[in-house]
Amino acid sequence: MTTLYGYFRSSAAYRVRIALNLKGLAYDQAPVNLIKGEQRSDANLARHPQGLVPSLETDDGLMLTQSLAICEYLDETHPEPPLLPADAAGRARVRALAQLVACEVHPLNNLRVLKYLVNDLEVGEEAKLAWYRHWITEGFDALEAMLTREAGTGAFCHGDTPTLADLCLVPQVYNAERFECHLAAYPTIRRIVDHCNALEAFRRAAPGEQPDAG
Amino acid sequence: MTTLYGYFRSSAAYRVRIALNLKGLAYDQAPVNLIKGEQRSDANLARHPQGLVPSLETDDGLMLTQSLAICEYLDETHPEPPLLPADAAGRARVRALAQLVACEVHPLNNLRVLKYLVNDLEVGEEAKLAWYRHWITEGFDALEAMLTREAGTGAFCHGDTPTLADLCLVPQVYNAERFECHLAAYPTIRRIVDHCNALEAFRRAAPGEQPDAG
Repeated sequence: MTTLYGYFRSSAAYRVRIALNLKGLAYDQAPVNLIKGEQRSDANLARHPQGLVPSLETDDGLMLTQSLAICEYLDETHPEPPLLPADAAGRARVRALAQLVACEVHPLNNLRVLKYLVNDLEVGEEAKLAWYRHWITEGFDALEAMLTREAGTGAFCHGDTPTLADLCLVPQVYNAERFECHLAAYPTIRRIVDHCNALEAFRRAAPGEQPDAG
Repeated sequence: MTTLYGYFRSSAAYRVRIALNLKGLAYDQAPVNLIKGEQRSDANLARHPQGLVPSLETDDGLMLTQSLAICEYLDETHPEPPLLPADAAGRARVRALAQLVACEVHPLNNLRVLKYLVNDLEVGEEAKLAWYRHWITEGFDALEAMLTREAGTGAFCHGDTPTLADLCLVPQVYNAERFECHLAAYPTIRRIVDHCNALEAFRRAAPGEQPDAG
């Protein structure tokens, strides 16, 4: 059985849940409570030497880390429905949109970074929120421009079926809204996220639907 | 003609230079001076709405962003020599090693983030360096453990030919050494980087070899 080691609010675990659901794959969930520090346990470090989530244990015993690498693995081993377009230019666009979120926004705003700001740099609550919103604004301004002006955009980030880009966007928007970053300035992002969330695969992956949702 | 819009010290541009060199592709370089703020110029924003580097303009007129997406595009359109292994499990491992650097280390330590720490959070020089070294240590500790214990490691991060993982590792090590993070604790990383840097494709991609090296 495939097992996802994740956390209900982890954006990266949320991406993998959407991918598994879109592929129609059954999986167990083994929650790793990030608030209690379980990611630093010996058991989790054996799965994921960085002490992060998610890890995915496949039914043939592989332990995979890094959410985008996991999603590409699932796409290669279970090609239908595809998470990437058929053409190289389309794949490059989808990967760039996904990486805009996964390499430029999310890494700056995840829990370990916010903790470092507060605990090590003694940044106050207001400056922490300003940091969070700064990187959301930087990223979403660019993403909105790309999604609005580029011909590849359809009902989803690329065309009319969900791709790796949507798998990254939806969790990032969920996370941003938790920090009260509103999407009024981003009508194209809003439209696409609403379209995604109308799908069962996205709805079932939402944090509030997970067994460890607190 | 393929044109790389980059900056000699940008880790992300450095990755793309290595990929182009390994593939034996000729390219022009159009430097974007990050110290002078040229990344925020209208010309660069038209290429890259995030105001970052690199962008790659292909000989058929595509403008690509995000270094890992660019490298995968080059690998798909110019398959030899491959930057990813032939098997899905191997590809997942290589992408995870690459993303460990590209999603967990580099985004926290690039120029725009260090600037925010100094200008907006008024962090002093010593605390800025501690921040830098903290994320290098977190990332390299995990990477060293994975590279040392996993059977997939060879002369390079994965097997005996360079992959996407080496393309990320070498620029990150170059960057870390600029900030005086030493590699004594990371003998496997050191061995692999030295092995990479013995290759012409890596040597020619080094920051000091670029036309805009100051």
